[in-house]
Amino acid sequence: MHTRDCYVSAPGKAILHGEHAVVHGKVALAVSLNLRTYLRLQSTSNGKVCINLPNIDTFLSWEITALQPLLDGCRDCLAKHVVLKQELDDDLLKRLRAFTGIADASTDTRSMAVLAFLYMYLSVFGEAKSLASITVSVWSELPTGAGLGSSAAYNVCLAAGLLSARGITSSPLTPQQDSARWSKEEMEQINRWAFMGEKIIHGNPSGVDNAVGTWGCFLRYHDGKITPLDRVPVLRILLTNTKVPRSTKVLVSGVKDKINKFPAVMKPVLESVDAVSCTCEQTLTEMSARGPSAEHYNILEELIDINQHHLNVMGVGHSSLDTLCKISLARGLHSKLTGAGGGGCGITLLRPETDASVIQSTVAELQACGFDCWETSIGGPGAQKYKKWSLPKQVLKCC
Amino acid sequence: MHTRDCYVSAPGKAILHGEHAVVHGKVALAVSLNLRTYLRLQSTSNGKVCINLPNIDTFLSWEITALQPLLDGCRDCLAKHVVLKQELDDDLLKRLRAFTGIADASTDTRSMAVLAFLYMYLSVFGEAKSLASITVSVWSELPTGAGLGSSAAYNVCLAAGLLSARGITSSPLTPQQDSARWSKEEMEQINRWAFMGEKIIHGNPSGVDNAVGTWGCFLRYHDGKITPLDRVPVLRILLTNTKVPRSTKVLVSGVKDKINKFPAVMKPVLESVDAVSCTCEQTLTEMSARGPSAEHYNILEELIDINQHHLNVMGVGHSSLDTLCKISLARGLHSKLTGAGGGGCGITLLRPETDASVIQSTVAELQACGFDCWETSIGGPGAQKYKKWSLPKQVLKCC
Repeated sequence: MHTRDCYVSAPGKAILHGEHAVVHGKVALAVSLNLRTYLRLQSTSNGKVCINLPNIDTFLSWEITALQPLLDGCRDCLAKHVVLKQELDDDLLKRLRAFTGIADASTDTRSMAVLAFLYMYLSVFGEAKSLASITVSVWSELPTGAGLGSSAAYNVCLAAGLLSARGITSSPLTPQQDSARWSKEEMEQINRWAFMGEKIIHGNPSGVDNAVGTWGCFLRYHDGKITPLDRVPVLRILLTNTKVPRSTKVLVSGVKDKINKFPAVMKPVLESVDAVSCTCEQTLTEMSARGPSAEHYNILEELIDINQHHLNVMGVGHSSLDTLCKISLARGLHSKLTGAGGGGCGITLLRPETDASVIQSTVAELQACGFDCWETSIGGPGAQKYKKWSLPKQVLKCC
Repeated sequence: MHTRDCYVSAPGKAILHGEHAVVHGKVALAVSLNLRTYLRLQSTSNGKVCINLPNIDTFLSWEITALQPLLDGCRDCLAKHVVLKQELDDDLLKRLRAFTGIADASTDTRSMAVLAFLYMYLSVFGEAKSLASITVSVWSELPTGAGLGSSAAYNVCLAAGLLSARGITSSPLTPQQDSARWSKEEMEQINRWAFMGEKIIHGNPSGVDNAVGTWGCFLRYHDGKITPLDRVPVLRILLTNTKVPRSTKVLVSGVKDKINKFPAVMKPVLESVDAVSCTCEQTLTEMSARGPSAEHYNILEELIDINQHHLNVMGVGHSSLDTLCKISLARGLHSKLTGAGGGGCGITLLRPETDASVIQSTVAELQACGFDCWETSIGGPGAQKYKKWSLPKQVLKCC
């Protein structure tokens, strides 16, 4: 079958406020991080399906004829389970694991990326007359395993690209536009497919990461319910990866232990974090409604500092994060960890008036500590479709 | 009249938990700090009253005949107001200010020390037939103006020494004892007199500092009510004075502003500090009842860390205090600010097994930062009376 070439991207994710507290029923604010993942889908005539993932040095291809048998007796279930209900088809996943030789216990980035791709490819094209001959290349600005939603951005790109190529979603691009986004209904469809990819990779994800990757901007997450915030500003930030490895599982369990050990001390801390998230949400809404003021930025900075102290109380701080806070504060900039903590990543808010020289010297000092550092933004757009020539040169070079 | 020579001492004070939160109706734990103030009272026959305060380079004396007129027409009111009701006699204070030339607006350490001494001397001896010829020397291990209750220790010593010399309190010393404490009733009397001295010096003190100086050990302070804790252990600490000057008034008002600005965020923080104080009290009580364990010390350390973060949330931290925390934590020791914060003093808990070499290297590094550092203890005895030869040599040399 003939498919349409396409170019899409999706942003990463950061937690602005509420990490850890969200596990205990409090509000979290998740935001899109403008380090993006780009996907290029090309129609080919070689009868193969190819996936190129230059970031993780993975270039694989399969003959369509070899994949076809995986769908035998599965067309009906695909139409029923996958396309309509969009539930994970455990049987297909099992066949794919057997086909690729990826064991149940495998969790490495490469295996998971391949599994998610093949599953989504077979599901999207499986109920068509024949499988499509395509090459999919994905390149990302996001580091993997850093809690920045790199797998979700990958899955959103796969969903957006494959659904677009298959003609399930329309092309939102008009001749005048270099990039565009889909309708609400189509975005919901992309998000649901991306969530399936997340389930393959993570088992039991919250759905926040793929929602941020799809919708972008700011999302409120509370008790399993995800609500996009209307009309919020894009904020300039520095993102720092301390590269200190940590286990989210161990950190989450440590916080739980601390709450059990000191309930009267810790429960009010979670209440306070909840109020930080809500006050931040309110401030962002005001910034959009009335236009951002210096006082708005002061409030955002104060909330960042308060939450960073609270995260230290929960025991998820780390000396590398203290270093980040100290280095940025020496220049009047405010930082907090984002995500699980115990190392990992931190965000530093940049004010509109923050001078380029200040940013440069901060980045230089952070890099001298061995950290990776990006000047980027949060709150920007979610998944997008592009015309080829409007993609950044580096992206075209890499995928 | 003939008076009895005597030697007394009183400890300083530290806040273990609850500083600032106490202003907003939460529990605070005040503890005696074993940096002590010593007073020597000698009977003389030169017809003079002398006060020697070597720490602040103050050596003054007055002819009794010159002081006598200050009491004219005041004997009755002294007996009524001071001795019975123990309320401050504003008229006598006014006369003393005129006599010494200390203006109403004066708040310097020397003027306040002189005013409190003369007021207490005239009040205690005023309703006797004649004023006593005495020399009072006071020497302290406590730095002044560092929030360590140096004025209270001074006032407790004055009260204990003068009441003892006048024969109002009995001598608690038996021939077998080198040092001893008074009965509960006499201690209450000493505390009330010391509180008057505090009123002269501070205007509207809480009464916590003189209570700690009198009773020693640990005191719970809540909504103006002071309750000594029974049977609590003495804890080894390092006391560090960063010597960074700060205004308690400005810091207290900053916390209030922050609570008004972010009530939903800040009120739970005060709740949590309250729970820290209560959990600490409970742990100290258990340590006495069952004997201290390593786990007890772990809890005390965790509470110190949590409260230090909370004080940072309140905005009363300081980079010098961060330095203290970092230097001590590098050796596994846990620190927090004590008192108003914004610089000032910090305490570091020492465990029973903490090695002398660890303490020495910590002290050396803190001193290299320009800080003053003392290895001492909290929770020790309050006001005491001594036999002369049992006093430390340095004390005998200085007063």
